[in-house]
Amino acid sequence: MKATIIHGAGDVRVETVPDPQIQDTTDALVRVVSACICGSDLWPYRSMAASEHGQRIGHEFIGVIEDTGSDVSGLTRGDLVVAPFVWSDNTCDFCQEGLQTSCRHGGLWARNGIDGGQGEAVRVPQAQGTLVKLPVSEDSALLPSLLSLSDVFPTGYHCAHTAGVTHSTTVTVIGDGAVGLSAVLSAKRLGAERVILMGRHKDRTDLGIRFGATDVVAERGEEGIEKVRQLTGGGGTHRVLECVGLKDAIETAFGVVRDGGVVSRVGAPQYAEVPMDFGVFLRNFTLTGGVAPARAYIDELLQDVLDGTIEPGLVFDLTVNLDDVSDGYKAMADRTALKVLVRP
Amino acid sequence: MKATIIHGAGDVRVETVPDPQIQDTTDALVRVVSACICGSDLWPYRSMAASEHGQRIGHEFIGVIEDTGSDVSGLTRGDLVVAPFVWSDNTCDFCQEGLQTSCRHGGLWARNGIDGGQGEAVRVPQAQGTLVKLPVSEDSALLPSLLSLSDVFPTGYHCAHTAGVTHSTTVTVIGDGAVGLSAVLSAKRLGAERVILMGRHKDRTDLGIRFGATDVVAERGEEGIEKVRQLTGGGGTHRVLECVGLKDAIETAFGVVRDGGVVSRVGAPQYAEVPMDFGVFLRNFTLTGGVAPARAYIDELLQDVLDGTIEPGLVFDLTVNLDDVSDGYKAMADRTALKVLVRP
Repeated sequence: MKATIIHGAGDVRVETVPDPQIQDTTDALVRVVSACICGSDLWPYRSMAASEHGQRIGHEFIGVIEDTGSDVSGLTRGDLVVAPFVWSDNTCDFCQEGLQTSCRHGGLWARNGIDGGQGEAVRVPQAQGTLVKLPVSEDSALLPSLLSLSDVFPTGYHCAHTAGVTHSTTVTVIGDGAVGLSAVLSAKRLGAERVILMGRHKDRTDLGIRFGATDVVAERGEEGIEKVRQLTGGGGTHRVLECVGLKDAIETAFGVVRDGGVVSRVGAPQYAEVPMDFGVFLRNFTLTGGVAPARAYIDELLQDVLDGTIEPGLVFDLTVNLDDVSDGYKAMADRTALKVLVRP
Repeated sequence: MKATIIHGAGDVRVETVPDPQIQDTTDALVRVVSACICGSDLWPYRSMAASEHGQRIGHEFIGVIEDTGSDVSGLTRGDLVVAPFVWSDNTCDFCQEGLQTSCRHGGLWARNGIDGGQGEAVRVPQAQGTLVKLPVSEDSALLPSLLSLSDVFPTGYHCAHTAGVTHSTTVTVIGDGAVGLSAVLSAKRLGAERVILMGRHKDRTDLGIRFGATDVVAERGEEGIEKVRQLTGGGGTHRVLECVGLKDAIETAFGVVRDGGVVSRVGAPQYAEVPMDFGVFLRNFTLTGGVAPARAYIDELLQDVLDGTIEPGLVFDLTVNLDDVSDGYKAMADRTALKVLVRP
């Protein structure tokens, strides 16, 4: 089959790899119907050292079950399913606590012999725990929004949820990428009374306004912090959703959070440490978030997608064929596309 | 009057300073009945650069009202009162949110012309918002426990409260100082099913057991982390209360917290940054805590002290006269005393 391999910065290729086979009784084989490129895929796309063998890539996909191992129940050949971006058994103690990203028998796609999502097919370990059946056909118009349940939307939702966004909170969202916009939509869904979106790409912040942002701050750094503080009577917002992952972004988050508030981060951190000195200590704010256990949120969010309450798939603004996946990476890296859908 | 002045590391003196006077209509004058030395006072005692003028010190006291400004109501000459370690108006938006340490009109003792607690008397700014009346006489046997409401016990309580300790949580407390032991007592009060105390001074950990610790781990660093993980089936505890403030301690906290759990820190940080890299991100734990808004907790905790449910004053194991306060510092710094009560 064909699958995407990244060989280094700027070097993404579609190559022929071995067809996946059932290996364990808990596996399923899935033919990929649609996949996508994640903002986090851009980190290796920008910085990975050149590699002859390269590495499989992609961790978001919807597909159709082609076969299942003998210990998989509840899933049948022909079922349309969505895969969260971490696979898990969904039964261990961590999974039971809603933290499938720490599953005792789970792991990441495209690592250690596991297929990536940007390919024609995937062997899914722990299939019964991982995959969620979708009650629509593979040509449904809902597919982009259903695909967003794989990662980007639950990641924004995890950010808002762990931050404790409620109807009485004010929120700043840092970043107008697909995760930031998903965080806006999530904050709105949780009833936030005010959502300030920090971003400087008008087409993206316009979608943010459609998703529920009440204010847009285009300024960055100290100037941006000052602007958010002006908008909030000097105090900052109760909740801050950091959806970028750069040190500047987390520092901005600390600058705009209200004393006693919460910063949640879901941008994969491109930094090793954060300031936690006496000055921070005096302000009593909380730092939470992390990699989103998408599986924990899919059942709840799926209903809202199916009934049309929310349309998180609006973040997709470009579709490419698998053979052209490299163009998709370039478009996202150049910011000519917000988020790219890939069709094998 | 006499008051304590710190002139540098190891150099604490009792000197004559101007008698306090009412300056603002919101002030009260308080004659100090008992004060104490805080673990945080030991940081300057260990490291402060020599200073000719020196600096007032002390931020925990119980006293008797001697006079009040014209805008102070509810407090009368002769009332016994306890002062939280940050003064505040108790009416601003932050105070209403229970964050009196961020009060818009508050501040710290022994700074910027404000008296310290380790002296004969104190001018109390924002007296009506700051002071809490005690329904006992100044010779009550409850005085040590009531004095602990000034800082050490609410600080331990803030740690357990912000960590979200409940009846279903397992807890590790890092540090067997007076704050750590107060955190044990607080975790017990909040119903924690298991409280692992990390400390290596048997007399202190014995008091920790009396306060509710179910396990004691004397090992430190990697060995201590391993021990706590062994005690918890490999996963660590849901909640970790960091009551030291050193980088080693916060790193131990990160080592023993369960994925998805909470680390709360109330040890005044002697570090500038903490690790928040991709490895931490994958574990989804929360970092919370900060300087304790003692005022927010006093009303609730006072009842338990008055009715004898808890006896947080057991942390005091040495009493000195004000003239001998330097001996008290030495005893705490040498760890021959756990916490020192000072009588003017």
